Amino acid sequence: MERITLNDIAKVNDPMYVATIFSLGNGHLGVQDVNPIGDQHPLGTLVNGFYETNPIHYGEVAKGYAKQHQTIVNLPSLRKIDVKTTDGYPFNHSKLIQDELDLKSGMLSEKYLLSNNERHLSIYMNVNSVIDQQNTGYYGIRYQFEPGNYYGKIVAEKEIKTSLDSHDDNYEKANQIDPRKARSIKTVDITPIVANPKIKAWTIRTQHSRLGLMVKVYSEYNDFKRVLDLSDSKQPKLSYDFYIGKIHNSTLPKSVDEINNEMFEQIAQHSQDYWDHVWQQSEIKIDSNDKLDLALHYNLFQINQGAGRDGLTNVPSKGLSGPGYEGHYFWDTEMYLLPYFIYTNPKIAKQLLIYRYNVLKPAIQRARTMGIKHGALFAWRTINGQETSAYYPTGTAEYHIDGDVAYAVSEYFNVTHDLDFLKRYGYRIILETARFWANFGAFSEVNGKHRFQFFTVTGPDEYTILVDNNYYTNRLAKYNMQLAYDMGNLIAKKDPAFLNQMGTDQDELNQLNDIAHNVYLPYSKSKRINAQDDSFLKKPYWPKSAPKDHRPLMMYYHPLTIGRFQVAKQADTMLAEFLFPHDISNEQLKREYDYYEKVTTHDSSLSRSIFGILAARLNDMKKAYSYFTDTVTMDLTNLQGNTADGLHLANLGGTWMSIVQGFAGMQMKNDKLEYNPKLPKEWKQYSFRQVFRGRVIEVHVTHQGTQLKLISGQPLSAYVNGKLVDLR
Amino acid sequence: MERITLNDIAKVNDPMYVATIFSLGNGHLGVQDVNPIGDQHPLGTLVNGFYETNPIHYGEVAKGYAKQHQTIVNLPSLRKIDVKTTDGYPFNHSKLIQDELDLKSGMLSEKYLLSNNERHLSIYMNVNSVIDQQNTGYYGIRYQFEPGNYYGKIVAEKEIKTSLDSHDDNYEKANQIDPRKARSIKTVDITPIVANPKIKAWTIRTQHSRLGLMVKVYSEYNDFKRVLDLSDSKQPKLSYDFYIGKIHNSTLPKSVDEINNEMFEQIAQHSQDYWDHVWQQSEIKIDSNDKLDLALHYNLFQINQGAGRDGLTNVPSKGLSGPGYEGHYFWDTEMYLLPYFIYTNPKIAKQLLIYRYNVLKPAIQRARTMGIKHGALFAWRTINGQETSAYYPTGTAEYHIDGDVAYAVSEYFNVTHDLDFLKRYGYRIILETARFWANFGAFSEVNGKHRFQFFTVTGPDEYTILVDNNYYTNRLAKYNMQLAYDMGNLIAKKDPAFLNQMGTDQDELNQLNDIAHNVYLPYSKSKRINAQDDSFLKKPYWPKSAPKDHRPLMMYYHPLTIGRFQVAKQADTMLAEFLFPHDISNEQLKREYDYYEKVTTHDSSLSRSIFGILAARLNDMKKAYSYFTDTVTMDLTNLQGNTADGLHLANLGGTWMSIVQGFAGMQMKNDKLEYNPKLPKEWKQYSFRQVFRGRVIEVHVTHQGTQLKLISGQPLSAYVNGKLVDLR
Repeated sequence: MERITLNDIAKVNDPMYVATIFSLGNGHLGVQDVNPIGDQHPLGTLVNGFYETNPIHYGEVAKGYAKQHQTIVNLPSLRKIDVKTTDGYPFNHSKLIQDELDLKSGMLSEKYLLSNNERHLSIYMNVNSVIDQQNTGYYGIRYQFEPGNYYGKIVAEKEIKTSLDSHDDNYEKANQIDPRKARSIKTVDITPIVANPKIKAWTIRTQHSRLGLMVKVYSEYNDFKRVLDLSDSKQPKLSYDFYIGKIHNSTLPKSVDEINNEMFEQIAQHSQDYWDHVWQQSEIKIDSNDKLDLALHYNLFQINQGAGRDGLTNVPSKGLSGPGYEGHYFWDTEMYLLPYFIYTNPKIAKQLLIYRYNVLKPAIQRARTMGIKHGALFAWRTINGQETSAYYPTGTAEYHIDGDVAYAVSEYFNVTHDLDFLKRYGYRIILETARFWANFGAFSEVNGKHRFQFFTVTGPDEYTILVDNNYYTNRLAKYNMQLAYDMGNLIAKKDPAFLNQMGTDQDELNQLNDIAHNVYLPYSKSKRINAQDDSFLKKPYWPKSAPKDHRPLMMYYHPLTIGRFQVAKQADTMLAEFLFPHDISNEQLKREYDYYEKVTTHDSSLSRSIFGILAARLNDMKKAYSYFTDTVTMDLTNLQGNTADGLHLANLGGTWMSIVQGFAGMQMKNDKLEYNPKLPKEWKQYSFRQVFRGRVIEVHVTHQGTQLKLISGQPLSAYVNGKLVDLR
Repeated sequence: MERITLNDIAKVNDPMYVATIFSLGNGHLGVQDVNPIGDQHPLGTLVNGFYETNPIHYGEVAKGYAKQHQTIVNLPSLRKIDVKTTDGYPFNHSKLIQDELDLKSGMLSEKYLLSNNERHLSIYMNVNSVIDQQNTGYYGIRYQFEPGNYYGKIVAEKEIKTSLDSHDDNYEKANQIDPRKARSIKTVDITPIVANPKIKAWTIRTQHSRLGLMVKVYSEYNDFKRVLDLSDSKQPKLSYDFYIGKIHNSTLPKSVDEINNEMFEQIAQHSQDYWDHVWQQSEIKIDSNDKLDLALHYNLFQINQGAGRDGLTNVPSKGLSGPGYEGHYFWDTEMYLLPYFIYTNPKIAKQLLIYRYNVLKPAIQRARTMGIKHGALFAWRTINGQETSAYYPTGTAEYHIDGDVAYAVSEYFNVTHDLDFLKRYGYRIILETARFWANFGAFSEVNGKHRFQFFTVTGPDEYTILVDNNYYTNRLAKYNMQLAYDMGNLIAKKDPAFLNQMGTDQDELNQLNDIAHNVYLPYSKSKRINAQDDSFLKKPYWPKSAPKDHRPLMMYYHPLTIGRFQVAKQADTMLAEFLFPHDISNEQLKREYDYYEKVTTHDSSLSRSIFGILAARLNDMKKAYSYFTDTVTMDLTNLQGNTADGLHLANLGGTWMSIVQGFAGMQMKNDKLEYNPKLPKEWKQYSFRQVFRGRVIEVHVTHQGTQLKLISGQPLSAYVNGKLVDLR
């Protein structure tokens, strides 16, 4: 039940799809499940935040454009091995016949049929691999051979490539047209630093970004080349443990020996311990649909594998499962992944927000470059904090990133009450982003009133670019400035010197509050819905006659062609309604839902989960269930068609949100947890665990009702269907 | 009076500025006035339409983007010569001490002081050069030497570089940030094809665009290297004649001998004849300001030099005076240069419009790429007709190019009554562009009515991008569709089979007419002015606190920063009011003028002339005069600061428009010429000649009144200040 196998996935014959689905990661190191035999797919090791820069070339450049690509380096696979008979016939073909990822332990167990086609020889190879979840530099792999029609001796040699040449350069293949893929990198030096039979080691350095890694491989059996007798009843084994760590401050350890080895068993134990802890805090179960239940477990497993934990890295939009989107961090983290972490593992949530704190300096610089005198503008996509989007209409113009980060800070604080975090990190983020909005927007007349407006922005819907008063953006900006006032005053009440330390004062907070109250939110009187922006509702609908299979639209049409129609890539105004559930009545929500659903293509993987959650809120369980099933199996069914480039991490987070914030209707009310649970008729029940201010809570939703259990921690009370319930 | 000398120009010490100002051209061949000595500026020969393509690299590419750069090839200078003493001391320094461009004959006469600094030797070199205006392949140059402090023998050798390496690669120097410069080209082969003492010849071929040129140089004195005795009283002369012709159909002439030589004197005579004719038809005089009079003559001279005459080429936005803007053709031709040609040399006007007819095929293809099922979309910038703008927000989004071309066709026809042109070329252009608008726009509700609207476009003001219902665009589109109806019916009346031959019918024309009547034109009720677009008037003004010297804004600010303010690069709505003088009252024009003038930076060279013309219409002669003086001397004073990249040809045309359509208030009325002349108080009088339906007319405007003279052709009548006047 809690194992993913070849039976559970869409494209068993697509090696890169398999490599992505069965990838292992620990927030620092990612190892794709590439076939250990042959040189077809030589790469597949990713280190979070280990990127190379290259100049962005523009056909026509302008002032203030992002200058450098940042591309996560796709490093040589750690899994390759060379196997031949002792008389030199190589087993150079290999077929994956079993693959099993244990979601409870993190162990990946595979079986390959190896063959030499010339001599019609075959043997079997079992591969076990696991990544360390405690000491995040370590990865262990073990090979074990069985006779096939060949029973003799074999020579197995651990192969480690030291080149980044790839035979599967998706980016070049795609003729550079797909922005979701990564570009290849030619400026990385891989240099051996030690050579003895038991240990190999290299430094890996990027020429432009000047980052360094140390890689060490330890062979359990004292060498990298071994002769194994298949007729020996003791099954021949080989075991290797890898260490990959960043070279901080660009200095090498004095010697490779400073890096301790970790045995395979120890790595496996660290993995087991970690996953025990994760499931203890965030176990989730759907009773009566094993497929969805498994997919959901898989999704949570992969979110955990992809999230940086060191405060210096974040969550690449594909996690560490593949190099797609170049390993960049987007708003996906704040809006789609942090809900899960805030409610199940706030330590990680905190580290992810500290990352944003750590890149405030380039964000402040970016605001200046954009002509904004005060405040910070976070990069739309980045690794090192600098803007690396080479297309500003769906890059820098998505100013809402500032509001997204501030919103996440407030969510983290509201749920955890972590005042220390707020004072040391969070408030600085809220203040600088609020300042940005106040200086970026302008008072201007609308419907006879002076309202604070935001011109020439792009909202979440990337099919509608450079518009005025995007509802989502304006709503977030309003909240962000309000937060600066509210949270500033909240802290100042306890610590009167705080505002001064922050370089602000009551005057500035009052001003932000005043602007917040005057932010314009576009509304259509005729349609009685919030308007996506000032012009969206005026545009013609996407033609019904257009070919239905031309999806995603961006792969078939010029941005101008898409942009002149009323067609949305994803939830936009609807996302704002999700984030601010008390803004509008259910009747208006219903109108908006019906309207925006019709003009949304869901070409973004960030869309369906939000529509599903809001459907649950509107009690349209049929729709909610349909969106949920699409969304929860998105990568296992390859719904978007590009899982081979990496998993859609934001959507994985969206599936957790669908259960907890959608079906169970969880939100905060009066500083307490609140649930308004619904149960799809297809299910007997579902349950989930969550963490809340030091407690672990388990929620069971059945057709008979909802039960809350306090698994650990102090008693508390929570709302269930409007009634306060005590948990002890 | 009709000679430009070093006294008349701004930057005598900037060699590339001088090279631009004194450039010679004939619509086919352009020769920059580069210093003949030394290798500082080795390039400076341009052939209209001789371009190389290179792939456009985008930081992030999308479907339908322009694929290829088209760059006019900056060929080696034809002017270089190597001079040394017979004992080998080179005269490798040279200072231009006299430069004189005779606007009446096209002859360029210069004097250089040549020196050898090592030995403190000096001599003088006189250079005469002239370009053939009849056989446009020819250019002649003659060198004549005089003793300085050196009286002995010299060796003069004609140097012809065969490399495109430039020491003055402005494009790379500017770090690629200035879109107004050209990029350098490395993929052109220059191959010698004959070598005898009297003749040198090469083929020049581009590797990607696969275009070819044949260059032949003829030496009058039978060799390219001569010993000259400076003490000889017969002044030593050297004379060379160049031929540069395009190799059509990629075939070479069988031998170089097929190309006839033309002697310097003959070239000079062809030049003289041509300019006699030009001035006979378009002489213009300002009495009492020699500086402005000279500048005006210079401007008309340069417009004539830059305009292609073969129906296969157009007017590069810098003419043939420099490689800026990569030799591309823009809407500049139709809106700023065709008025001059239509009213003084309609043969050239016709050829320029035939060029558009000849690129209809790629324009139809472009419309399809942009998702428009019928009609044609001309490239925003191009040489070969394919879109080459690498930045669509101020490229393809400037759909108004279609309306601009159609407008010019109608102007040409209205003035010339050239029905044959209209049937063979013009109506096809009008019909295909009208079809584009009908399929590109959409009916949508505005103020309770269904109106035909255009979403996500950029108007002439390139500081305001991707807006809805740009007034200028909508107005042109409306006119364009109306034209298709009106002119289609006009021709059909005389030739009933015509519509069928064109692949249209009365139904389609009626439909276009119906849409034309329903086009929405944005208007601000509160300001009582036509609104530049749906959102422009709502945006905040450009901050007063911003540094005043940060101009043009685009060189200092990100497009998003500029775009969120109410700031215009150039005349936008005002240009529409100029084109359609009967749309609004003078009172509304005054309101619009006062409003838009305040928010316009004139960072585009296309702006001031329009504001000047409209000021004259509003009888604000102070303002009109001020704009005129700025505009007429723009390049001679280096007003925009970038004349070294090439002349601002559209603005040169704008100065003619300023006199004739501005001060003299010329327009068409009831199919007759109409004048409403005004005379700046600073002048005694002004006069100009123009061509109208086979006649040459001379207009004199004095403080006593306006006189019209019929210089040649049949009698006609015209309106002067509302009264019909007969000319005999």
